[in-house]
Formats: sequence, structure tokens, C-alpha cells
Amino acid sequence: MTQTSYSLQEIAVHIGAELTGPPESRIRAPAPVESAGPDEITFAESPSYAPQVEAGRPGGVVVGPDFPDLPDRTLLRVAEPRLAFLRVLELFAPKRACTGVDPQAVVRASAILGEAVSVGPCAVVGEETRIGPRSRIHAGAILGEGVVVGADCEIEPNAVLLDGVRIGDRCLIHAGAVIGGDGFGFQWLGDHHHKIPQLGTVVIEDDVEIGCNSCVDRATLGETRVGRGTKIDNQVQVAHNVRIGQDVILAGQAGCAGSVTLGNGVIVGGRTAVSDHVTVGDGAQVGGASGVTRDVAPGQVVWGVPARPMQRVLREQAALGRLPEVLKQIKAQERRLAALEQATEQRKRSGANPDVPG
Amino acid sequence: MTQTSYSLQEIAVHIGAELTGPPESRIRAPAPVESAGPDEITFAESPSYAPQVEAGRPGGVVVGPDFPDLPDRTLLRVAEPRLAFLRVLELFAPKRACTGVDPQAVVRASAILGEAVSVGPCAVVGEETRIGPRSRIHAGAILGEGVVVGADCEIEPNAVLLDGVRIGDRCLIHAGAVIGGDGFGFQWLGDHHHKIPQLGTVVIEDDVEIGCNSCVDRATLGETRVGRGTKIDNQVQVAHNVRIGQDVILAGQAGCAGSVTLGNGVIVGGRTAVSDHVTVGDGAQVGGASGVTRDVAPGQVVWGVPARPMQRVLREQAALGRLPEVLKQIKAQERRLAALEQATEQRKRSGANPDVPG
Amino acid sequence: MTQTSYSLQEIAVHIGAELTGPPESRIRAPAPVESAGPDEITFAESPSYAPQVEAGRPGGVVVGPDFPDLPDRTLLRVAEPRLAFLRVLELFAPKRACTGVDPQAVVRASAILGEAVSVGPCAVVGEETRIGPRSRIHAGAILGEGVVVGADCEIEPNAVLLDGVRIGDRCLIHAGAVIGGDGFGFQWLGDHHHKIPQLGTVVIEDDVEIGCNSCVDRATLGETRVGRGTKIDNQVQVAHNVRIGQDVILAGQAGCAGSVTLGNGVIVGGRTAVSDHVTVGDGAQVGGASGVTRDVAPGQVVWGVPARPMQRVLREQAALGRLPEVLKQIKAQERRLAALEQATEQRKRSGANPDVPG
Repeated sequence: MTQTSYSLQEIAVHIGAELTGPPESRIRAPAPVESAGPDEITFAESPSYAPQVEAGRPGGVVVGPDFPDLPDRTLLRVAEPRLAFLRVLELFAPKRACTGVDPQAVVRASAILGEAVSVGPCAVVGEETRIGPRSRIHAGAILGEGVVVGADCEIEPNAVLLDGVRIGDRCLIHAGAVIGGDGFGFQWLGDHHHKIPQLGTVVIEDDVEIGCNSCVDRATLGETRVGRGTKIDNQVQVAHNVRIGQDVILAGQAGCAGSVTLGNGVIVGGRTAVSDHVTVGDGAQVGGASGVTRDVAPGQVVWGVPARPMQRVLREQAALGRLPEVLKQIKAQERRLAALEQATEQRKRSGANPDVPG
Repeated sequence: MTQTSYSLQEIAVHIGAELTGPPESRIRAPAPVESAGPDEITFAESPSYAPQVEAGRPGGVVVGPDFPDLPDRTLLRVAEPRLAFLRVLELFAPKRACTGVDPQAVVRASAILGEAVSVGPCAVVGEETRIGPRSRIHAGAILGEGVVVGADCEIEPNAVLLDGVRIGDRCLIHAGAVIGGDGFGFQWLGDHHHKIPQLGTVVIEDDVEIGCNSCVDRATLGETRVGRGTKIDNQVQVAHNVRIGQDVILAGQAGCAGSVTLGNGVIVGGRTAVSDHVTVGDGAQVGGASGVTRDVAPGQVVWGVPARPMQRVLREQAALGRLPEVLKQIKAQERRLAALEQATEQRKRSGANPDVPG
Repeated sequence: MTQTSYSLQEIAVHIGAELTGPPESRIRAPAPVESAGPDEITFAESPSYAPQVEAGRPGGVVVGPDFPDLPDRTLLRVAEPRLAFLRVLELFAPKRACTGVDPQAVVRASAILGEAVSVGPCAVVGEETRIGPRSRIHAGAILGEGVVVGADCEIEPNAVLLDGVRIGDRCLIHAGAVIGGDGFGFQWLGDHHHKIPQLGTVVIEDDVEIGCNSCVDRATLGETRVGRGTKIDNQVQVAHNVRIGQDVILAGQAGCAGSVTLGNGVIVGGRTAVSDHVTVGDGAQVGGASGVTRDVAPGQVVWGVPARPMQRVLREQAALGRLPEVLKQIKAQERRLAALEQATEQRKRSGANPDVPG
């Protein structure tokens, strides 16, 4: 880990900010607005944070055009404070240098490492595996045989890439993730579940992030594919033959069963499961803790188990909340109906309707 | 990984198929019907795949008796194409040879390895651990002390078998799985949750498969047991003292809380949780994303949170879907009842019923 | 693993029990009441276990004051059998001795190990990482740079503590757990999800247990914090910037999304998800398989998706169960209403109400 510090002027130049107020501080880190100290920089997304900024002692604050002028606070004023602060975070993000191949790494003879590749201690790179330039295989990560890793990837500690898996450029595979485990496929043969060999592979395209302890299974045949720019959170399960489009978000503990298709730009909430063979169209969104049992049209927003259009689920839940009271009402109506029917019946029996024809 | 190829004649003989059409191809791999190329073999489960087979260029197609004769396609006709193709897949499944004990494996002095055992780099085999013949402990897998692994097992990369765990023959423990972690047991002692030592173990019977990053906890006392032939998918949690029968299926992200019992042949859908001490009877099936809070009778099919008989849940969901409209109907009925009551009341008050005895 | 045995007298003295019956056995292990043999000790939580105790052959049985006197059974009578048996379990719990730094461990030059620290084979301790006295880093565990581990901790096999993470004293981090993975934070920049650098850390306070394959993500800025005495089960996800109080219980497969706050003493059931930014008050309880979408007041008991007060959910579910029948009732009421309306209408039209003033 590198420890760096910047002057406020340097930061202001870097993000194109107008700097006002006392600029003495040297900034060592970004910090949340509620705890930022004199050597830290923070940001205020809207003027409503002004009291917090005044109450604290931040070294500097990235603010927008509409933020009030606080004379004893150092402000870095920009058009878009959120985006500017993202650039501040990137400035302070640790730059992990190439550390080469550790003496206690295991790199097989036929593996091919690109320029400036790092392989940590107790990491294993199998036969005929190829790793692109500047990629870093961290301690304890296991790469099987015939694996392909692109350039500028991070394969975090104890992650596993099994035989034949292919990873694009600039991918981040987090600790404990497993890519290329067998798909879960069995044929019942009358007296036992017989394993269907899982002969396909996994292809992870460029710029994909896969969270800690998440799993992407290999296809039975062909490939399981995760599209460019897709981001997968921790403990997500992606089963065999799933096809995930580009720029998809899968939040924590989500799961896709076998042969699911997710279109481009789909957002899947945390703890949401998609049943096998279901297709979720481009740009669709699935709320958290849902179970998607049939296809979702492009752009649709669904929720629930089974997942249905969001508006419909909210209406049903509101109705369900009123149901206990409504049941009482129905019971009362039953009594009232019976009373009315009795009155009508009595009238009939007593000939109260002499004028009605025969 | 071994790369093999077979002639179509060899494959036809192997699966007992009648071979028709041009048999020139040498087959290098099985492939899905939609992408199979000239050196690949695929299968058509029913005649409905005929157009796809005609549109593509598969080297060979395993088909059933009722599949049409396509003169320019090489067909391998069998009685049961699905089962025959399973045998083709097995033909092409990689045969991982014994690689012996890697120089960078750690095998303790008192460990006992059977004939032709493989231990990969950075794998650890603890004191007094015994491994049966031909089993393969892959890179980074950690076996504690006093572990027993049967014959012909695969313990995949970075899997963990903790002290004293026992695994049968022909088991497949996938990457990152943890067998024998402490059960989750605490006693509240007025000011803190006090750990209850977890002194039991885990027994995995023969022919069991346990998915990537799944966990099977050791019993508090006695054993947690997974029965012969049971198949457990990825990210499944099996808590302390659970007893799972034979030939059970636990799909991805399912979970069994402490002391659950699953009978033989039970099928648990993905993302389904079973509450502690619940018993699910032989042959019962639990739909996905369910929460099983009480016992399920043998053969029963249940779904939902809490899990109830499937037919009942479907009826309730249909009813719930109509509820918002029904609430409007009830409101209208309320108005209509009031109008009728008013009419009846008016009639009474106006003496409209002179004939009714007073 | 150490194998120990105790005489029944030794155990009786240790737990302050009155010993009656034949005391010949030497006890090698505690066991469940249904299987305890002559060299095993078990306990009977209530007199209702007497038949089981009589039917079996336990070497000794810890019982309470109200347990019947069984002349041919060796009883250890105490005021609180459950707590006394907990102390028996602790007596037999394996005492894993210090094994020092394994020759195949990797400990970086600037790491600082306290007295009697153990580091297992293929474990890695990064630069500037500090480990407190008597802590044990098991095989394959990876500790990044600048990590702090307190005294008397167990970091189990293949667990991962990423750069800068801080762990208190007497913590137990189970196999495959990942502490300090990146928070899941992205900014959509019009054409791609742009990673927000995750510059915060994770602080785990004293006496915390974190289950197998669970994950605790680092904060975007500041820290993700798990309070003293909190116990987290397997496969639990704790996202960035979550704050968990003291003595909290998170059961298996639970999840907390970003910036969730859990108060002291909160209990979260298995498979329950808490949505981002939600606060659950001190002592609140959330039933299993729930989805908590808004704040929960201190002491409140909630359940369901979305989580609502338990009593309300039970009422709603009971009402839902009656709904299919009720819909039929409403249909019948509709018919009866129509009949009444028709009768009233006919009466009106036929001038059946001559006395009503015109």
C-alpha cells in the first residue's frame, strides 16, 4: 500500500475546481463528511450538508455551484461535485506496483506470463495458462490449465479459475470467487443421479468485476458468458450456460439458474433468483429478494416471488394489508344480506306484494 | 487436460447407434445443436430439432427413432438419444491422470496416502489424515488432521476439509467448499453469547457432490450426515446436525438450518431455506425460493414462504392477484347493501307491510 | 487434535455436580443422549428424557434437580444442567497448541508476530501486518498488508483478510471467509459503470465470530464495523459501510446491503436481507427469509418480504389462506345482492309500495 498526500491546490487543479478559503492543509485521504479531519478531504453532494461541513473540521470540501460560501472552510467548487470527488478518490486509490513472480508462487513450465505480471505467494498458474501484461495474480489464487487471463486484471487472494476459463482485460475477480466450477447437471437413471459431464467453459468479457465468493459455473456444452462491463457483487451464483449481457448489475447473493439470459443493462437486486431458462430483456430491473419465474420484457420493472410488474405487486400488497379488515367486513355483509333476504322472504310469504302479478 | 478425437464409427459403436449419412468427420468435441461444427457431435432430443440440424453444420447428430432422415446429415440413430449422448459426453470428458504429490504440496508425516493419490501444489494434508486410492487433492485444498477421504474422490482447488471430517468414495467436493466448519451454537449467559464447543463431525457418504463455496457444518455432538448419492449445488449451507438422506438434490443457494432432516430422494429448489428441526419426508419436493417452517410429508410438493402445498399456494396467489379488483367490488357491494337496507327500512317505517301480523 | 479422557469424579468436581450411581466409566467424549455409549457423557435437559436415558447406555448423564433417580444410571446432578454440560463440552474441546510458524508459511519481513503465534503451511502474512499473541493463522489463510489481528484469534484455513483490515481479540474467522473485499460501488458515466474506489476499511471488534465463506466488505470511505461479541453464521454478506452493534446474531445466508445499521442485540434470521441504508433498532428481531426494506424500531419483531410486524404478517397470511374461499363467497353475495335488488326493483315498478308518499 502506498501512502500519498496532496496539497489542496494540486487536488483543485486535478479536478478543475475553484479553491476558496484557507488552503493550508496537506490532504492525506478522502473521508466521509461526518468524520473528515484537517488532513482529509470530503464532499457535500448538496447545500443540505452545509451544517455538517460547518460542524466538522474537514481539510477541504468538494462542493457544487449552489453550495453556500463558508468563509472558514476550504471549498473546492466544481460543476458536478459527485463526479469530481470520484476523481479525488481515484487520486488516492492505492497503486499496487508489479511485484513479479513470488519465489513461493507455482508457475508451470508451459504457462505464459505477459510483461510485468505479478504472481503472489502460494498462487498457482497451471500448464498452458496465459496471463496478459500487468495482470496480478494474488496470493493463494489458483489458475488451472489452459486458462486465459487478459491484461490489467486483478485475481484476488484465493480466487479460483478452473481449467480452460477465459477472462478479458481489466477484470477484477475478488477473493474466494470460483469461475468454471461444474454446472449442476444430472440424469436420473432409475437408481441414481448420474453426473452429466460438464464440458463447456466460461467466458468473462472485458471490464467485468466478480465479487467475493461468487461462482460462475462452466457450461455443459458451449459457454457460460458474462458480458463486457458487467458488475457482479459478492456471493452471487451464475449457473451453467447462463448468458449475461453488457453493463449488467447483479447485487449481492443474487442467483441465475441454468440457461438464464440477462439482456444488456439489466439490474438484478440483492438476493434475487432467476429460474432456469428465463430471459430478462434489455434494461429490465428486478427488485431485491425476488424470484423471477418467467420472462421479463425489456425495460420492465418487476418484483416479488414470483416476480410481477412492480405496480401490480405494490397494489396487491396494499390490498393484502387491508384483507384482515375486509374479511370482517365480508362477514358483516353476510349477516346483512341474510337479514335482507329474510325480510324479502317474509314479505313474500305473507303476501305483502298483492299487486305483483300471479 | 487431454485433447482427444474419435471417428463417427467409433462413437456409433460405443453407443450402439445406427450410422447413416456422410461419415467423413473426425469428432473433436460434443457441442450444442445451435453451434456444432463439422468436427463436433451434437444431439437432437426430438424431431422438432430437425430444422436446426439442417441449418447447422454438425459433424454428427445423435437422434431417436422418430427423427426424420436427413440425407446430407450424419445421424447416429439410437433408441434413447439423451442417454446415448450422455455416454458421448463421458467419452470426451477429460481424464485427469495421477500427478502424484507435487513438490510444493504439504503432506504431514503421519498422513497415509493410498495408491495413485495426487496432491496438488499448495495443498495441505494434515497429520493422521488418510486418503483413498486414486483420489486427487487439487491445488490449495486444505485437509485438516484426522480427515478421511475415500477412493476416487476429487477435492477441488481451495476446498477445505476440517479436522476429523469423513468423506466416502467417488465424492466430488468443488472449489471453495468448506466441510466441517463449527456449527453455529451459542448460549446467552446474561451478558454475552457464549460459544458452545462444536465437538461433532461431518460424514459425507459415497457418490456425493458438493458445490463450489458450499458449507457443511460439523455437529455440536455426533455427526452431520449427507447420504449416498446426494448432489449439492453451489453456495448451499448445511448447518450442524443436519441429516440428509440418499439421492437428495439441493439446488444452488439452498440452506438447511440446524438439525433439519431430509428424507431420501428429496428435491430442494434453489434459494430455498429449511428452518431448524424441520423434517422433510422421503420424495418430497420443495419449490425454489421457499422457506420451509414445518414438517413436509413424504411425497408432498410444497412452495412459498412459509412453504405450503403447491396447489394451495397457486390458488392463493391467483386469489391475491384478483384482490385489488375484489376490494372495489366489496366497496360497491357495501353501497348496494346500504341502499337495499335503506329501502327495506323505509318500507318498514312507512307501514308498507300491513299484512304482517303486528 | 488432542484426545483426552476424564473420570466421572473429575467431571463432577469440575461442574460442581452430585454424583450418584455406578461411577466406573472413564469418559472419552460428550455425546448426544440418543447415542451416548459407556465411555461417553451426555445430558438430559428435562425429566422427559428419562426413558431415553434408561434405554441407552451412557457412561454418565448431567441432569437437573427434578430428574428422577435412575439407580443403574450414573447421574451428575446440578442446578442448571444445560450450563453445566456447556462446561463439560469446554472440558473436551480440543486445545490446539501453538505450532509456531510453519516452514512453508510465508511471513513478510516487516510483519510483526506476537508471542506464541502460529502460522500454518501455505498461509501468507503480508508486509506490516501485526498479529497478537497466541493467535493462530491456519493453513492457506491469506493476510494482506497492514492487517491487524488481535490476541487469541483463530483465522481458519483459506480465510482472507485483505489490506488494512483490523480484527480484535479472541475473534474466530472461519474457513473461506473474506474480510475487506471492495464495497460494491459504481457510478454510471453514460456508457459504463465506473468503479468508485473503495478506500475505507473493516474493523471487527473483540469476541466476534464470522462464519465460513461469509464476506464483510470494506467501506467506500471510513469503516465497516462489526461490534464486540457479534456472531455471524456461514455465507452471510455484510456490505460496505454497514455498522453492526454488539452481541448481534446474523444467521446463515443473511445479508446486509450498503450502509445498513444494526443496533445492539439485534437478531437476524437465516436467509434474511436488509436493504441499504435501513436501520434496525437495538434488540429488534427479524424472522428468517425476510426482506427488511425500512427501519425497524428497537425491540420490534418483524417478518416477511417486505418485513412487517410479526403479528400483522401472521394475520395477513391467515387471511390470505382463506381468500380463495372468500372469493367464492363474494361471488355468491354478488348473486344474492342482484336477486334482492331485482326484487326491490320489481316491487317499485309494480307500485308495491302505495303507502309511501309519492
